[in-house]
Amino acid sequence: MSYFDAASAVPLHPVARQAFLAALDEGWADPARLYREGRRARMLLDAAREAVAEAVGCRGDEVVFTSSGTRAVHSGIGGALAGRRRVGRHLVVSAVEHSSVLHSAQVCEADGGTVDRVPVDRAGSVDPSAYAAALRPDTALACLQSANHEVGTVQPVAETAEVCRAAGVPLLVDAAQSLGWGPVEGAWSLLTASAHKWGGPPGVGLLVVRKGVRFAVQGPADERESGRAAGFENIPAIVAAVASLRAVRAEAAQEAVRLRELTERIRTRVPELVPEVEVVGDAERRLPGIVTFSCLYVDGEALLHALDREGFSVSSGSSCTSSTLTPSHVLKAMGVLSEGNVRVSLPAGAAEEDVERFLTVLPGAVAGVRETLGAPAPETAVQAGELVVDSLGKRCPIPVIELAKVFGEVPVGGTVRVLSDDEAARLDIPAWCEMRGQEYVGEEPAERGTAYVVRRVS
Amino acid sequence: MSYFDAASAVPLHPVARQAFLAALDEGWADPARLYREGRRARMLLDAAREAVAEAVGCRGDEVVFTSSGTRAVHSGIGGALAGRRRVGRHLVVSAVEHSSVLHSAQVCEADGGTVDRVPVDRAGSVDPSAYAAALRPDTALACLQSANHEVGTVQPVAETAEVCRAAGVPLLVDAAQSLGWGPVEGAWSLLTASAHKWGGPPGVGLLVVRKGVRFAVQGPADERESGRAAGFENIPAIVAAVASLRAVRAEAAQEAVRLRELTERIRTRVPELVPEVEVVGDAERRLPGIVTFSCLYVDGEALLHALDREGFSVSSGSSCTSSTLTPSHVLKAMGVLSEGNVRVSLPAGAAEEDVERFLTVLPGAVAGVRETLGAPAPETAVQAGELVVDSLGKRCPIPVIELAKVFGEVPVGGTVRVLSDDEAARLDIPAWCEMRGQEYVGEEPAERGTAYVVRRVS
Repeated sequence: MSYFDAASAVPLHPVARQAFLAALDEGWADPARLYREGRRARMLLDAAREAVAEAVGCRGDEVVFTSSGTRAVHSGIGGALAGRRRVGRHLVVSAVEHSSVLHSAQVCEADGGTVDRVPVDRAGSVDPSAYAAALRPDTALACLQSANHEVGTVQPVAETAEVCRAAGVPLLVDAAQSLGWGPVEGAWSLLTASAHKWGGPPGVGLLVVRKGVRFAVQGPADERESGRAAGFENIPAIVAAVASLRAVRAEAAQEAVRLRELTERIRTRVPELVPEVEVVGDAERRLPGIVTFSCLYVDGEALLHALDREGFSVSSGSSCTSSTLTPSHVLKAMGVLSEGNVRVSLPAGAAEEDVERFLTVLPGAVAGVRETLGAPAPETAVQAGELVVDSLGKRCPIPVIELAKVFGEVPVGGTVRVLSDDEAARLDIPAWCEMRGQEYVGEEPAERGTAYVVRRVS
Repeated sequence: MSYFDAASAVPLHPVARQAFLAALDEGWADPARLYREGRRARMLLDAAREAVAEAVGCRGDEVVFTSSGTRAVHSGIGGALAGRRRVGRHLVVSAVEHSSVLHSAQVCEADGGTVDRVPVDRAGSVDPSAYAAALRPDTALACLQSANHEVGTVQPVAETAEVCRAAGVPLLVDAAQSLGWGPVEGAWSLLTASAHKWGGPPGVGLLVVRKGVRFAVQGPADERESGRAAGFENIPAIVAAVASLRAVRAEAAQEAVRLRELTERIRTRVPELVPEVEVVGDAERRLPGIVTFSCLYVDGEALLHALDREGFSVSSGSSCTSSTLTPSHVLKAMGVLSEGNVRVSLPAGAAEEDVERFLTVLPGAVAGVRETLGAPAPETAVQAGELVVDSLGKRCPIPVIELAKVFGEVPVGGTVRVLSDDEAARLDIPAWCEMRGQEYVGEEPAERGTAYVVRRVS
């Protein structure tokens, strides 16, 4: 079994496991109590807080332990917005943030605030000057991830923090994907992270609020964690989380080089081994362990199952892989192909031979899925000199497959009109044009669904 | 060491520890993922949910795992109030609820709602008819604990649930103190609990929302736990929590009898061994492991330290034991003495010999604290034929000590006026009168602080 979905969660680090067991014995009591079990718990909690502060590069009293990274983001954004209510209710986020940030932004809008979503380039990166342009006198908060969770692109956080500082706007950095690799540089104001991403146990998130940042806790009062995280402290898990952070940090520099080489290998060889593939995400400014690519004419869910049968656990941002019918908002914002999308995120210690075996297995897995999807001929008609393909009611990746199948039938200069009611087509048909060097003319509302028009140029 | 603060937290149950370790290996992955690690995690989570449902007496899809009991209460009350916003914004709680309930009630008031706090009798028990009287056409929710966390009094939940059902108002039961002993009877609508009270790990709370109860999740959207508890599921801790619940339930009937005998021993013998003590809480309708008493002329914090030095970990609702200067709201609502307050809450398996040793040690510990507080003579003056004691600036238990010291100086029929700015005096001077069979005339605003007037009747 090769688990290649480290960006989602990783197993508990062996060092963390030891710390966890010890802290279950020593740190179960209420740290607010005056008796010895309470004092012992308090000491463990205080020591963990100081250790985290050192790893993050902040003061101990700026660290709040939450019950998850998601909770840290919700509390951090909610508290920072409320703390600057007098300034205004404008929030700036990037279009490729984690769903916890985007959901908090929706709450801001529902409460009467406004949100600007800063776009990204085709590599998934924001431009700090786009943040500068988005900031307004009534901007209460800006948010930017340290690195993207789906494609691994590292964001220009320090530059964006500088832009925000110049405008007097606090920047919240979601460091969930990067904190295990190192501290976040720059003059950020708030930071969030999640322990189970770096080999800590589930149940521990981090919220750091720099001194001087206006912050008003939302929700019912609670005296724990400076009033910023309600509920009994989960000290054993906190101790384990911190032990793991220290352990992975000690190996980070060396392991980053090794994983970077392995993901570079995947970046280079997948397009050689598998036809019609687009590798997405920044080639240089990227996390060591993440590589993401999309395969034309492939059903993402079917490919995940095929790889799972071969012993590989990966994830996908394709629309056909989960209960949702829309593709990943990250791929959408980047404007890249979403069908047959695969994210490989290597955990620390991933074996070279497992990566090699993945490269051996992948071409057959993709070919197998493509074969099963190849079947019936598309329904076509010629209307007003244009070839119309009726893909209504068909899900990703069928509309693109049907487009590709009929494309040879139109002369150079002619157009194909694909009718589709699948949300993924909006992303994948332009991406197909980009990959094939054909012209994407645009989309138009149709009687049912949407018409996507493509002109043959070669 | 004898840890007698089980109502606060208990160490992890040995069975839970085993389950925890196994689930750290098997249940760390994201249960929403399609690959095998995800499916394995999902199976553990589903099994835990069904087991909890059985223990609670509800359906699996009514169970939500939260990150703490506090979070369960906050989400439960917030969601139920929002779900019935159209009915109104009136909330009914008892005066002796856990702080998480009372803090949620404050949020309700801050949002424009109104809250009725149903009083309790001197034993700490509510009267269901008082709930009936408090319910109004615009009542959105009522809350009642299954048993009190400070004095152990079991509340008439089934009767109160019936009253609420008749009025069409959902009842939320905070079962934090009792769920390890058995399911909550009656037609409640929502239920909350906390795993570390029954030997589960910290980091797991329970929120049960019966089908048909209107519920609108507050805060940012999140797809996990039916959208009712944001953040990555803490499956290892959930599995451990459920294992512990099953284990303690299996022993509950037998252990309840044993602990009840031990706490009955404390209830009976403390007043025999220690002069001027009031045992509080219902003598019959009470949890097996909790017994609470208050000692006149004793500083609660000093007594905790004295007992800690003797190896006993207990808690106190006295005002002098924590950063707060007000005594426990529970003792206040009951109208009982708060000074020198001690809560003994025995964990399952508490040894008889430890309880005996506690009874041996307690009289000396109380006497020692009383001795150190005995020092200077009160400042008194006679004004308008009344003895005035100036206890301004002195903290609990000094005002009561000074009252007792001078009381012999007034003739039967005469009055003493105690001037105090300590919040505990409001509770403890009437309680002293009750215990001593003297007449509490009442309180009046004074130039500084409050004047408490007591008439000598014997």
